[in-house]
This record gives sequence, structure tokens and C-alpha cells, in this order.
Amino acid sequence: MPHLVILYTGQLEHDTDMTQLCRSLADTMLAVRDEAGEQVFPTGGVRVLAYPAAHHAVADGSGDHGFVYLNLRMGKGRSEAAQNNAGQLLLATAKAHFADLLTRRHVGITLQIDVGLPVFDGRIGNLHPLFAPSA
Amino acid sequence: MPHLVILYTGQLEHDTDMTQLCRSLADTMLAVRDEAGEQVFPTGGVRVLAYPAAHHAVADGSGDHGFVYLNLRMGKGRSEAAQNNAGQLLLATAKAHFADLLTRRHVGITLQIDVGLPVFDGRIGNLHPLFAPSA
Amino acid sequence: MPHLVILYTGQLEHDTDMTQLCRSLADTMLAVRDEAGEQVFPTGGVRVLAYPAAHHAVADGSGDHGFVYLNLRMGKGRSEAAQNNAGQLLLATAKAHFADLLTRRHVGITLQIDVGLPVFDGRIGNLHPLFAPSA
Repeated sequence: MPHLVILYTGQLEHDTDMTQLCRSLADTMLAVRDEAGEQVFPTGGVRVLAYPAAHHAVADGSGDHGFVYLNLRMGKGRSEAAQNNAGQLLLATAKAHFADLLTRRHVGITLQIDVGLPVFDGRIGNLHPLFAPSA
Repeated sequence: MPHLVILYTGQLEHDTDMTQLCRSLADTMLAVRDEAGEQVFPTGGVRVLAYPAAHHAVADGSGDHGFVYLNLRMGKGRSEAAQNNAGQLLLATAKAHFADLLTRRHVGITLQIDVGLPVFDGRIGNLHPLFAPSA
Repeated sequence: MPHLVILYTGQLEHDTDMTQLCRSLADTMLAVRDEAGEQVFPTGGVRVLAYPAAHHAVADGSGDHGFVYLNLRMGKGRSEAAQNNAGQLLLATAKAHFADLLTRRHVGITLQIDVGLPVFDGRIGNLHPLFAPSA
């Protein structure tokens, strides 16, 4: 944690640059601050993954409608202000990214932030130390 | 919300028509009614996405067993009766869809409905207005 | 339930054998015991699915960093000891699997276990009976 997973209808793969969206959302996560002005998400903990669906059905099938679901799962302990700030900034980034697409196609876009409460939480890997502040 | 995500072992991709299943499940969602006879899921809010796994392992590896996980995430506020009705109808749709496959292969199929409790919930997009009732 | 879903950055697809990881994790799940020495996960209920992301962004983009998220969702009712034992064993399996990769690349790896609390839980399929104990 935190990580942001994007699930979307596959026809959008050719309509918008999802690699760009991943980078924009990661940069947004890096920019989120709490009330004290501190970075809310540690640099090494920012991860965004995007998955086009192989199959989909949206609404009543009356058109080739699209859907994008953005879900950020973060650990507990962050303030409500930090959570809301993250949500508003990520939503603004998504809105800017999809503005052009929405002039050409009907798409539903939902962004949700969940606070995960896992019963077990383990980490391995060597990513965080890369961004640890030097003494 | 609501949206239904289907995760499944990749070998099933050639065994059953998952696009058809998505449509059948979306149509089922559109047909779910609550105690008052009202549509439980708004038309523009019905979204089904299906993802074959690139890699999998099932049970003890004693055969090329399959697995399908259907997960509907919906917002809070719907009655227990509406939730249960949705579950029973979706399960019936899945059962009918997979009846033939189950005569040919061992497959585990699980359908779960979660009520999401996100700490942030934002929407953009232009899908819902398309299905809004006219005044 | 239980099932374990692995989400990972797509560049790792060529760096490590994810089918092997799925099998190793499934075997680990089969080996987990509770305080009474009983198998924690029924054989027919062990399912592992792995998904490379089509697009991703990790940290500040300063390198082609990787990310692997392993999420086991299980039903309620298992003891804390069983949950923790499962977590420790799965983490050890993941650590062994990725040891070589971590000498070559920066990768963040997170394993979390969630206890699902679905409002509807249905099963169909013919996998469990295959592994039912004979009378």
C-alpha cells in the first residue's frame, strides 16, 4: 500500500493513453500533502496498475459505452483531510485526462479510495530503501 | 458502483463465451427489483468486466481445473432483500451459462457481493445522464 | 474463497516465471495448518490467479521499477494463528521466488490477507467434490 488499480473496458485501449494516465496519477499521488504539509504517500509506495478487460458489458448495451474504475487502496492512519485531498486531486487528474475522450464517447468513470484492513500485511522487496532520506 | 468483475483461469477463454456471460449478467442486474418493485441498479451504473488470468494454479494441480470468481461491488443503502435477490438471480444466470462447461471440465465458481465503504467516492463521465428519466 | 490474486507490473512478465509462483503459492496454501494440525484451506478451494498489468507507473519514474501485489482473500472463521501462519508461509514462498530477481531489479512486493465479509456468497461448480474425503 498504497496502490491504485485501474480497471476499464477494453475498447478504450485505443482511445486514450493509459500509460500516460498511470504516470499522471502517480505524480498526483506524490504531490498529495496532509494538513502539516507532509507527503502523504512515500515515493517508493506509489504504484499504479491499469488493466483493460478482455470482455465487458455496460448498461443496456445500447451503444459501445465505456467504463473506467479507479480504486486506490491505502493503509489506515491517514487523516480524513489527507484522504479527501488525495481523492480530489486524483479525480481532477482523471477529469483532465479524459476530457477529450468524453467529447467523443459515453464513458462512466468512478474513483474510489478504500482503507485496507488486512489481517496480515507483509513486505519484501528493495524499492522503499531506494527513496529513503539519506541521513 | 455497482460493478461486477469476473476473474478466471485463462484456459476457460476457449471453453466458454465470456462476452456473452458479461451481457447476461448485465441484463440480470438490470432486471433486479427491490421489495417495492423498483430497479435496484440504475441502467447507467451497470458494468461488468471479465479478466482471464495470464497464469494460474488451482487445487493440487491434479488436473487442468478451472476457477471463476464473480465479485459484485455495490454501494451501501440497498436492503438485504435487494442484495439477496441480486445474488440469487446472478447465481442462476451463472449456473445456466456454465451448465454445459461443467459437463466437460472441473471448475469452481464463486459469486460474492460486497458492499463497498470507500472513504472517497467520486464520479466523472457522461454515462448516467444518457439513461436519466426525461422530465 | 480462499483465493489469491497477484497483480504486477508487466515488465516482470519476462523476468520471472509467474506460473511457477502460482503453483508454489498454491502448494504453500495446501500446506498451511492450524493449531490443531488441520489443513486450513480445503484442496478444492485453493486458487491462485496472476495478472500482468498492461500499463503501470511506479514511484517517481526514476527507473523501470517493478511492483508485485499478492492479495489472499479468505472467509471468516479462521483463527488468528491460522491467518498469521498462512501469511508467514506465503511471504516466505514469495521471498524465495523473488530472491534472484531482487538482485537484478528494484521491485516492491506486498502480501496482504483480507478476510472477506460478503453480503452474498454463492457457489456452483464441481471442483470441491473432487477432493472430498471418501467415506
